[in-house]
Amino acid sequence: MIRVGIVGYGNLGRSLEALIDLEENMELVKIFTRRDPSSIDNSRMESLDNILDYKGKIDVMVLALGSATDIPEMGPKITEHFNTVDSFDTHAKIPEYFAEMDKISKENNLVSFISTGWDPGLFSLNRMIAESILPRGNTNTFWGKGVSQGHSDAVRRIAGVKNAIQYTIPKQEIIDEIYNVERSLKSYETHLREVFVVAEEGANQEDIRNEIVTMKNYFDEYETIVNFISEEEFEREHTGMPHGGHVIRVGETPNGKEIYKLSLELDSNPDFTASVNVACIRACQRFFENNNFGSHTVLDTPPVYYASNNINLLNKYL
Amino acid sequence: MIRVGIVGYGNLGRSLEALIDLEENMELVKIFTRRDPSSIDNSRMESLDNILDYKGKIDVMVLALGSATDIPEMGPKITEHFNTVDSFDTHAKIPEYFAEMDKISKENNLVSFISTGWDPGLFSLNRMIAESILPRGNTNTFWGKGVSQGHSDAVRRIAGVKNAIQYTIPKQEIIDEIYNVERSLKSYETHLREVFVVAEEGANQEDIRNEIVTMKNYFDEYETIVNFISEEEFEREHTGMPHGGHVIRVGETPNGKEIYKLSLELDSNPDFTASVNVACIRACQRFFENNNFGSHTVLDTPPVYYASNNINLLNKYL
Repeated sequence: MIRVGIVGYGNLGRSLEALIDLEENMELVKIFTRRDPSSIDNSRMESLDNILDYKGKIDVMVLALGSATDIPEMGPKITEHFNTVDSFDTHAKIPEYFAEMDKISKENNLVSFISTGWDPGLFSLNRMIAESILPRGNTNTFWGKGVSQGHSDAVRRIAGVKNAIQYTIPKQEIIDEIYNVERSLKSYETHLREVFVVAEEGANQEDIRNEIVTMKNYFDEYETIVNFISEEEFEREHTGMPHGGHVIRVGETPNGKEIYKLSLELDSNPDFTASVNVACIRACQRFFENNNFGSHTVLDTPPVYYASNNINLLNKYL
Repeated sequence: MIRVGIVGYGNLGRSLEALIDLEENMELVKIFTRRDPSSIDNSRMESLDNILDYKGKIDVMVLALGSATDIPEMGPKITEHFNTVDSFDTHAKIPEYFAEMDKISKENNLVSFISTGWDPGLFSLNRMIAESILPRGNTNTFWGKGVSQGHSDAVRRIAGVKNAIQYTIPKQEIIDEIYNVERSLKSYETHLREVFVVAEEGANQEDIRNEIVTMKNYFDEYETIVNFISEEEFEREHTGMPHGGHVIRVGETPNGKEIYKLSLELDSNPDFTASVNVACIRACQRFFENNNFGSHTVLDTPPVYYASNNINLLNKYL
């Protein structure tokens, strides 16, 4: 039985709670929050201030926190006392974050499994495996159709925008013709962005549209579609959290091309990310039991570590 | 530099030769054959009788041999003296084969990486990872469109058949509707078989067709299409070795269904199998260097072991 704690109670935290409760070999001990725990109708909430009271009572702590500031600030502090699993997803900062977490975990004979989820995570794993098998070729990653939280936030900050959501959409015509794509394309070549905006009354839609499509780093390089909709339509059509994507490697071998493609089609992005987190809780615990302290990622994890039990795997999967 | 030997020189052996020659960090030392080496126009051929002369001169031996009798007979003998990589693919006998190879490798402080390729191999790995992440759901494996050597052989043994090839074809309408498939289907529910036959002159085509479609274990449960074609058409259209397939898991999570799908589209089945073998040569050597002796499979191999080098993997893939 692995005793688990969750830090954070947003969409990811709630998915984790539901999934851990379904695991026969895990027990959810507490969910830690910076809010007043009594303000949340859930008997397992606990103040983050009391987290150290749970040393020795929780085996693995899952950090269901944002990557912008929360994980970089709180991860190192928590990993000093607990084994941790996180979904840190600021790709450019992962090596630096790994180094910091690795040092602290090792000093404390603990394990931190970082940057799990699907990208980084499963997609990273498949990019590496595909390139190891097919070293000559090109890899393209497609994201979506799904919501980009960062782009949605950026649009919501525009004057006159009451609410907004942004979908990243891979160009299907490129995926269909991937056999003939000879290089790793830029993200703006392979995706379009579609925005649904609820405008404030009296706001100038053309001004909003212009501000969106010219926004540096976010939209300016992309083909962008802006739709203005009513608040009712927004609530009815745009509150789900579907996502997905593809990692596709086209490899050259002596007798042709070989295509390796991993695809995800997700009804619920937080449920799937949490599902990967749960498999990584098992892996984290196994690294710990093997005294393999420090930071780990999907790249160095023996796949059996994810399995819910290790019985008869050869019979079952090979 | 990993010094490699190949045992066997059929389609797989030839693909391996071409691919190993492209690897900067591998040197192909010899290709061992049971035939008279001088009968083959290739300066690297060597008689299998002399294999023991290469102890200490070859780091990893790849067994490019058939699974029916060759690998079970020769694998244990070779793994007594060399690290080995094989593609043993008789699924039902893998646990038994693993146990035998594991014992011998361990006794000799060597490594045997068994049952690599794509199924068993990559597909096994993805079945296990997908089920670990999404423990509630169902997995279906689709093979093809591609040639089944066993089924082609079975048809060629029928009286009046001059030549024949059999393609296994997954039912696309099931793949397209996989979201709504609620169980692991039987192979005969998800595939059809298409046979192209060159009949002997004067042979009765209806008799041949009947013998094919009623053949127990091979065709009787399947929807089977039999085409009679000319020898010219056979040579023109049916000598390539394309293959591929999908592993698809549909997982249930609290807020919906999540689809995990690995797909391969291969121009050359032997080239791709050999490509996986080459990645496994690296892994085999790394297990050996870490004194992690005995048998290994894709299920227990840290993915970094496949990479051609370990530099900056976090930057590159996460």
